[in-house]
Amino acid sequence: MTIKDVATIARVSTATVSYVINGTKPVLPEKRQRVIEAIKQTGYQPNQVAKSLRTKKTNNIGVLVEDILGFSTSHIINGISEHVEQSGYNILLNDLRMLGSLFNRYDQIVQQKDKISKALSLLVFGARVDAVIYVGMFDRDISGIITDLGKPIIIAYSTAKDSHTCSVTYENEQASADAVRYLFDAGHRRIAVITGLAHTSPAQLRMRGVLSAFKDAGLVLDGALVKNGDWERETGYSCMKDLLEHEKDNLPTAVFAMNDLMAIGAMDAIRDAGLRLPEDISVMGFDNREVSRFVWPRLTTVEIDLKGIGFAAAQLAVAQLEPGSKKAKGRNIVLPSRIIPGGTVAKV
Amino acid sequence: MTIKDVATIARVSTATVSYVINGTKPVLPEKRQRVIEAIKQTGYQPNQVAKSLRTKKTNNIGVLVEDILGFSTSHIINGISEHVEQSGYNILLNDLRMLGSLFNRYDQIVQQKDKISKALSLLVFGARVDAVIYVGMFDRDISGIITDLGKPIIIAYSTAKDSHTCSVTYENEQASADAVRYLFDAGHRRIAVITGLAHTSPAQLRMRGVLSAFKDAGLVLDGALVKNGDWERETGYSCMKDLLEHEKDNLPTAVFAMNDLMAIGAMDAIRDAGLRLPEDISVMGFDNREVSRFVWPRLTTVEIDLKGIGFAAAQLAVAQLEPGSKKAKGRNIVLPSRIIPGGTVAKV
Repeated sequence: MTIKDVATIARVSTATVSYVINGTKPVLPEKRQRVIEAIKQTGYQPNQVAKSLRTKKTNNIGVLVEDILGFSTSHIINGISEHVEQSGYNILLNDLRMLGSLFNRYDQIVQQKDKISKALSLLVFGARVDAVIYVGMFDRDISGIITDLGKPIIIAYSTAKDSHTCSVTYENEQASADAVRYLFDAGHRRIAVITGLAHTSPAQLRMRGVLSAFKDAGLVLDGALVKNGDWERETGYSCMKDLLEHEKDNLPTAVFAMNDLMAIGAMDAIRDAGLRLPEDISVMGFDNREVSRFVWPRLTTVEIDLKGIGFAAAQLAVAQLEPGSKKAKGRNIVLPSRIIPGGTVAKV
Repeated sequence: MTIKDVATIARVSTATVSYVINGTKPVLPEKRQRVIEAIKQTGYQPNQVAKSLRTKKTNNIGVLVEDILGFSTSHIINGISEHVEQSGYNILLNDLRMLGSLFNRYDQIVQQKDKISKALSLLVFGARVDAVIYVGMFDRDISGIITDLGKPIIIAYSTAKDSHTCSVTYENEQASADAVRYLFDAGHRRIAVITGLAHTSPAQLRMRGVLSAFKDAGLVLDGALVKNGDWERETGYSCMKDLLEHEKDNLPTAVFAMNDLMAIGAMDAIRDAGLRLPEDISVMGFDNREVSRFVWPRLTTVEIDLKGIGFAAAQLAVAQLEPGSKKAKGRNIVLPSRIIPGGTVAKV
């Protein structure tokens, strides 16, 4: 049974049969239906697999995600799939399911190296993907974690100094500086900071951004107004409560929480203390997570271009698979972030 | 270059090389590293593709999602991937990206039939997946939408009466009845209902559940207390505002909103009217969407077992791929839901 038989039965050209099988050109619904029926009727086996044996390409790009439930992951996959599917590739998805084991302990990722290495070799040697996009859950340096398996590897939402990988991430430091400048522009000077886990890379980068904004403005950050949270809402609440108690004679007029969940905890603490939000204390978050749209008032926060990160990672992967292309090893792309104005920052 | 050469260089058995390539058994990290190095060094091409040509199986299960950004999708994929990966299959993910075009217009899905049919034939004929799991964005009947392509097709989070598909969904009617009974148990009798888009299947099923709970309790639902929303927060707010104005002489003591977003809108309207939540009016949502944990107080709502839906769909798919298994056509699995108590329902 050949493609010609299918074409004859379906009353279309062999090219049309090929378009249906490979998605290379649009086909009228009625024609597609006839082709599908003819393929089913004849039991025709498209020679995709044989072709793949010949070209040593599967047209599959492995997407290895640290956790599909990470709040950023589906947005990044959305960006990846848009470019990958346009380019005629499929996504082979593998979920490392790290959220349970790694939550708030990104430093322990080295212990996960073996799990990652195993998943990578299954994708590359077992499923024979043409390239791999590794999607991190948090912005951090994962150098040394991803083994070189001889295929293009792009890291999205994390970085690595390994020469065999490329990465796409966002301007963490700059975005935090912008968030603080936004508070300066609204007239705030006495600004508190609720950090993420202090030893983690995003917390350190964001603190660097805070300090550079203060320096540029010729102002000094009051160390008593810096409280260490752990990225969770609960510590946002307790840090803010602490600040309200210890600084009650000279309250900050604004607080920058290094993520939205802690910002929401801080909002609750402000209201529980009988203060008005944002009139008495303004709150700025980071992430533009879905929940920031649903708290009241809408949280003013920083948006990371997650879809853009996925899209750029897919571009880097696909470009390396074009015939005659060079490997784009060691390239790092850093995307800008932007402020999303909400109702939690007042002018003073 | 053969698997034996790789085994010799890596100083392991050929079985160990096979375990690394196929993930069939655990391998010590040091040994795996040696195998990986040997494969890279020798340029050995595992004969997976050739094997796939022989067995006519790719070990890939296509997961066709209506939109990866739908709030339920990543939870369902989480459940799918757990079972699929345990069973030695990979997930080939394809995103129909329907959220933009279909949002709140599920009735228009028929117009998307061609897009779905195209994606399906690419997965089945182009990528040659062994089975397909179709992940809906909303619980509804999509009979006639999914073409029979001769491979097992499981529908997750939607249903279909087509004899060539199986489906896994949740107890919509029962869960709504339970939600209303929960309000009865807390002493509420004058209960308002904010519906989803009235012509959609989940809204109709949930209304049936509401009515059966009233009937079972020997009570009558006051039609003046039923307001039609459109699943979005804004209509939750406006419906509640309407109720507070028109029923001010005989306010409901509780409101059941058919999803969390409308419940959150209703919460805002109650507070904006200067009423206490939940002391003056209780609120019950539906979905247990992430945001319901972050509003204050935490929303009392209904949890759908999304991970369980994905897991069961994967079980149905994998079971049909076992050697000698029969096709489980026309099977429908309906999973139970459960109430998540929060702080928005008071006893009266």
